[in-house]
Amino acid sequence: MSNTIITIGREHGSGGRLIGRKLAEELGYGFYDREIIAMTAKESGFTEEFVSRMEHTRTSSFLYSIYAATREMPLTEQVYLVQSNIIKEIGAKENCVIVGRCADYVLRKEPGCIRAFLHAPIEERVRRVREFYGEDRGTEEEVKANILKMDKKRAAYYDYFAQRKWGQAQNYDITLDTRMGIDTAVRILKTVVEEWKKE
Amino acid sequence: MSNTIITIGREHGSGGRLIGRKLAEELGYGFYDREIIAMTAKESGFTEEFVSRMEHTRTSSFLYSIYAATREMPLTEQVYLVQSNIIKEIGAKENCVIVGRCADYVLRKEPGCIRAFLHAPIEERVRRVREFYGEDRGTEEEVKANILKMDKKRAAYYDYFAQRKWGQAQNYDITLDTRMGIDTAVRILKTVVEEWKKE
Repeated sequence: MSNTIITIGREHGSGGRLIGRKLAEELGYGFYDREIIAMTAKESGFTEEFVSRMEHTRTSSFLYSIYAATREMPLTEQVYLVQSNIIKEIGAKENCVIVGRCADYVLRKEPGCIRAFLHAPIEERVRRVREFYGEDRGTEEEVKANILKMDKKRAAYYDYFAQRKWGQAQNYDITLDTRMGIDTAVRILKTVVEEWKKE
Repeated sequence: MSNTIITIGREHGSGGRLIGRKLAEELGYGFYDREIIAMTAKESGFTEEFVSRMEHTRTSSFLYSIYAATREMPLTEQVYLVQSNIIKEIGAKENCVIVGRCADYVLRKEPGCIRAFLHAPIEERVRRVREFYGEDRGTEEEVKANILKMDKKRAAYYDYFAQRKWGQAQNYDITLDTRMGIDTAVRILKTVVEEWKKE
């Protein structure tokens, strides 16, 4: 039987990392979020900082596509490829929760892959980011602008590599508004996994 | 305390009506789907057939917007308005499950409203429609074309009246791919309702 893999796409500030980690703990599964960056860096020879930046420089601009066409394989594609292989290896190795990195798309052919997407109203995310995320300092307006910028980058990265819309319900097995609370979201996702395994 | 209302948006053939009815039965809630058409007809004086047609004639075409601007209130808007008031009355009266009809948008200010959206891969929906829905006869290709046409109409109706994207995860508290099975979807939605009521 194939491993059970829960992939979590998420809006910035929706609590995706926290929910993913709690879910993994409760299920006794492996947990992979930024860990994948370190693994990709090690495998590719690029630095972690560079890999992390590549994840957020994907654009759908016309100029970029011209630039990309002039190269054998642009750096973002190289990083994506290494990262995708690492994600496939993780999924083949153990039951796990993987946050971000188009993992739902990379593992689309895995029968044991449950694709989740988490989001929350922007006010809720501003509150959460200011309260819990060390890196987001500034006025409420600045934090909000930064969150929306992060979302835009994630959407562009996903839309480019997965060739479909980030946050479109039809691309996921389950999506949740995390305004219902972190623990509630974890319990619901756990129910989904348990139900899934019954099938 | 306000009533608990589960609204279900759904792709054609995803089992939304069946899941909604089972969920309502298990929770002991009221169930409203096509019942709302009869109520709207009675209230507005239009026939049921006319009300039903109006739900599917909404277009976002430029010509229609010119046409609409020349009238005090176009018929689709009149029907929508009567229907919305009925939905609000139902929500104020009892705990319930309401399928379709932009109910999630109509009841967006109700704190007890849980907004769900159900979808499934097209092959799964073709199979389900051919197996369970009397009205969809024809070749596989014809059934598929009809399903996609229905989705397009629902999307246009929703996008016009709710002014946002049908099937966009961020517009719902939960979305599910019903390829996981009807009973599984019912159990997950029931968990969501129970968790919600705990908060």
